[in-house]
Parts: sequence; structure tokens; C-alpha cells
Amino acid sequence: MDEKKIIKKYFRPLTNKVDSLNLLDDVSQINLRDKSKIITNQDSLVSGTHFFAADDPRLIAKKALRVNVSDIISKGVIPYGYFLSLSIDKTVNENWIKSFCDGLSQDQKKYNIKLLGGDTVSSQNGIFITINMISLSNQPIIKRSTANIDDSIYVSGYIGDSAVGLNLIQNNSIEENLSESDKSYLLDGYYLPDPKFKIVELLRTYASSSMDTTDGLFHDLKTLSQTSGLHFHINKKNIPHSNAVKKFLKYTDNYDLTYFGGDDYQTIFTASKRDHLDIMNHAKKIEVNITQIGFVGDKSSKPILFDENNMRISNNLNTFEHFK
Amino acid sequence: MDEKKIIKKYFRPLTNKVDSLNLLDDVSQINLRDKSKIITNQDSLVSGTHFFAADDPRLIAKKALRVNVSDIISKGVIPYGYFLSLSIDKTVNENWIKSFCDGLSQDQKKYNIKLLGGDTVSSQNGIFITINMISLSNQPIIKRSTANIDDSIYVSGYIGDSAVGLNLIQNNSIEENLSESDKSYLLDGYYLPDPKFKIVELLRTYASSSMDTTDGLFHDLKTLSQTSGLHFHINKKNIPHSNAVKKFLKYTDNYDLTYFGGDDYQTIFTASKRDHLDIMNHAKKIEVNITQIGFVGDKSSKPILFDENNMRISNNLNTFEHFK
Repeated sequence: MDEKKIIKKYFRPLTNKVDSLNLLDDVSQINLRDKSKIITNQDSLVSGTHFFAADDPRLIAKKALRVNVSDIISKGVIPYGYFLSLSIDKTVNENWIKSFCDGLSQDQKKYNIKLLGGDTVSSQNGIFITINMISLSNQPIIKRSTANIDDSIYVSGYIGDSAVGLNLIQNNSIEENLSESDKSYLLDGYYLPDPKFKIVELLRTYASSSMDTTDGLFHDLKTLSQTSGLHFHINKKNIPHSNAVKKFLKYTDNYDLTYFGGDDYQTIFTASKRDHLDIMNHAKKIEVNITQIGFVGDKSSKPILFDENNMRISNNLNTFEHFK
Repeated sequence: MDEKKIIKKYFRPLTNKVDSLNLLDDVSQINLRDKSKIITNQDSLVSGTHFFAADDPRLIAKKALRVNVSDIISKGVIPYGYFLSLSIDKTVNENWIKSFCDGLSQDQKKYNIKLLGGDTVSSQNGIFITINMISLSNQPIIKRSTANIDDSIYVSGYIGDSAVGLNLIQNNSIEENLSESDKSYLLDGYYLPDPKFKIVELLRTYASSSMDTTDGLFHDLKTLSQTSGLHFHINKKNIPHSNAVKKFLKYTDNYDLTYFGGDDYQTIFTASKRDHLDIMNHAKKIEVNITQIGFVGDKSSKPILFDENNMRISNNLNTFEHFK
């Protein structure tokens, strides 16, 4: 089944369109009487799909929190707290719970958030984690649908660390060409996305539209361009890669893995080209890597990504499927 | 593992004690600047534990909403909307989703709530549903911890419909003694809890403490008495049963199934005995069955339920475990 079709056909008609933002963004926004807003995101992680049951429970806990933190901060909002639902099977013992809660505790300090509630239930088979993360804000979120023609397109951090990290776990063949520290860096890329609060002020100051990268850079760029109804032109050569990924690419030439591989949890955003120097200066000041990777072209009924040679980037994006 | 121990030892230290109410109630309460509150509940249902994968998806959807509605209204609050996380395996096709959403849609109308957001992911094995239900209120919730000595103890509706309904599904042997309409009524008791908004005003006017019944009446009464730190005296003869359950009890004498069986989703509450007649009149006016089943005794470091003969109701409550 195609997640987008399922959402459009069955779930969108059930929504309160104002609060749910028509399910076009990953968050909802409830307007309160004093014009402040409750901003909420809810994401699930399932063993065998989003993590391995044998993974360190500390890392599972942190990833579960961070994928939600990533969604919230990419909308220009700081999270306040979260609800946790944990379904566990008989393979989970008290030590597992203790380690899982250690991971939560460490990231609660990192992100200054607290547990608000939730539940624990037992499952027949598998571990299921749902986190509902809530924020209070005086300002509306930065939407996906509001990119402007001629805006520049930016991405934070590096692209492909997570996909190459997962590739390392699944396929040892290229390991010999990478140093231990490269491997450790790339595994962290998969297990420990690192969304940064520091980007929130930059986004609030400059971004015309934004979202986080979860389904693979090109898939997410396509989503952003479609939601805004505009062509995106992407300069592939500008896409930022870490040194470890550059080494991997040198040996494998597998650029598509980094373009289409998911789970980077970086932020893509658009901003007026007049602000380019200010954005670069701001990024330098907060020590966050921000790279311009393209520009927004004209309107289109069927938005498509173009590369620097004005070639369409595959229409049939062979990408990490979100409905997984 | 014992859920209460796990919560106390590992999850409570992670909470913001004010907002999470120390995890003593099923809901959290965030205080906003204008003194209004965000009240939230999050509950999960797992196939093989809380429903059967082959059940009608409409009924699964309704049960998932209603267990959350029950938690919220038992705190004296009307729900506003909800987030849904749905994890499905390969046995789930588009027709299943369509029926599931039909069930959501019907109950959205019944309860005047809307979908606000959430996600859909695929699992290796099993269906997992997490609903986060949110309310906005000007008044604080009715807590579990605030029962008073000499209060009367009440329960809404009938006790045991769900447990006897589940017994029918699992064990056909006593079916012959029940009419088709009895059976249909009892199956509805299991599949379709029926929390009623009409009870909210009654609770807000009279209740000193309250909670919904999910783990079995006696287990829940024990929880309420423990949280308030008081002895509860229960008159077993006054516990209200539907006609169908009365017939079942006549043939089986299995009263314990109704006392300890879970999933009733009724409300238990305490109130000043001075208000008894007013409560009965109010209940009559709103056509909700409210029955006094006992009274609150003295303080205790180890709260225990007593029956009408001043006998302890089993200390080792052999009950439907919540951590399931």
C-alpha cells in the first residue's frame, strides 16, 4: 500500500483541517484563545523495521526521542515534553527497561524535555514505541507549503551518514576500506540522529518552508516541492557529505544510496536568495553546517526535481518507503 | 514484570511531576499561562492482547477511541481530538483500512472529536494502535488521590458485561442458557465500551475522586483506595449487573469473573454522603445508571478493600493484569 494514497483517501477526511494542517506537515497545530499554539508530533518505531530488537536499548530510546525532536525543530519549534507508549514482548526483561530508561534520561537532559505520561503494554511479538511530542509556541510553525519561486534551497549537516551506516551493518564487504573511527561515525549516523536546537532560531529568521529528511533526501525534496507546488532544481555536486561518506563513495560510487537512503534527520529549508550571506553567517556563528543545494524554479502542476544539467531526477524515485 | 513496579522504579523518575501528576492518574495536565489546562491521555491496543486480529476493524477502531474517551471523561473532562499511530502487518489490506476508518468516522461523530495527526508504519507481525487524546479545560481534573473519609463510593453502568462477553467468545459452553439478544448484548460489552459524556457534569459537580474501570472493578477500587490512602468498604450485593450478566451468574455462580474481569470502562467515583440524593436525582435526569457500592473508611498505610461482612476482599487480587 502507498502511504500517501492511504492518508489522502482514508485519514484526511477524518481530520479537523485547521488543527491537523490537512496532514500536509508532520505536526499538528491547535490555536488557543490567547493565540498561542499547541504543536504536536507523533511517530512510531517498530522492531524489525526501524531498529533491530537486539540493538542497545539506550540507542533505541534515543532514536525514538530524536526522530520526534527532529520533526518538531524542523518546524521552528522547541519541544516541551513527550508521552511514551511502549509495547514489549517476552524477550524484554527488566534490564532492558532499565537501559531503555537510561537512554531516555540522557536525552531528556540533552533536550531539556520530560516524560508527561503514556502506557506500557505487552505484545505477542515485537517491540513497538510511539512517542507523542508536544510543544507550546507563540508563533505558528514553518510549513512545507510556503516555498517561494526563486528561493534558495538549503540542507543542514551531512547527507547519507545513516544510509551508509545501515549499509555497513547489513553488508560488511566495504568495511576494510574504512577506518575504525569512520565506521563508528557512520554507525552513529544510523543509530543516533542528532537534531540540533540551535537551528530553530535560524529557521524562524529565514526559512520560507521547511521539513526534516526522513525518507531520503530526494524523496523529501520532492515532497517539499510538491507541497509548495513548485519545481526544485538541485545541484547534486553541492550535496554535503561527511568525510566518512566521501571515502565510502570513492570506493563504491554509490551516490544513489546517499540521495535516496532514509533516516538522516537533517532539515531542508527554502529561504529568499537575498538572505544567503546572512544565513551563512548565522550558520557559522551557531556552528551548524548549512549548505545551499539548489533553487526553487517556476510553478508546476506536477512538481519535479531537476539536477544541475536540467535533467529530471528520477520520476519513479526508487526510495526508502515511508510506509514501512 | 509488574507494571506498577516498573512505572515507579523506572518511568516516574523521568517525569515532570507537576504535568504528569506523578503518573498517579491516567492523564497528564499541563497548566497554561491563562490557567487553562491541556489534558492528555495515551493508551495502546495490541492484537492478541486487547483485540483479535480477525475482529471487525470497525470495532477495533471504536474500542481504541473509547478506551481513551473513558479515561478522559472519568477525569471530568470532554475530549477535543486525537492522534493515531497505526502499525500494521502484511495481513492488513486496503479494505481493512477502509473499515477501520469507517469505525473512526462513526465514533468521531458520536463523540464530536477529530483526528489531529499521527502516523502509519508497517510491523513484522501484529497490529498496534496508539491513541493520544487531548482536551482543553478551564478546570483541573478530578484526581484519584482525593477521596475523603466517610465519602460514598459509586459506579456507573453495569459491571461484568465485558468479562462475560469475552468468556462467551472463549468458551461456548454456557451459551445455551442465554438468549440471542443476551449474547449480542454481552459481546457488545466486550467489543464496544460505551463511555458517556453525560457523566462529566455529574462528576464535576459531586466527585471527590474518580477513575475508570479497566483492570477489573476490585483491582481498580484497590488502586483508587491506595492512591487516596484510605480503606474502601464494598458491599458486594450492591454491585450492579445487567440482566444478561445476572442470567450468566445464575447458571455459573462465577461472581469473581465480574469482580475481577477487566475492560468495563465504567467510572468509579467517591462523593460526600450529604450529596447522595442529589447524585441519584442527577443520574436519573441524565439517564445514566449510578449505584452506590460502598463507603470510604479510615486511613491506612496499607489500604485494603473490605466487603459488607468486614472481610478483606482477597489481598492477592487474582485479576486481569494491566501489564499485558
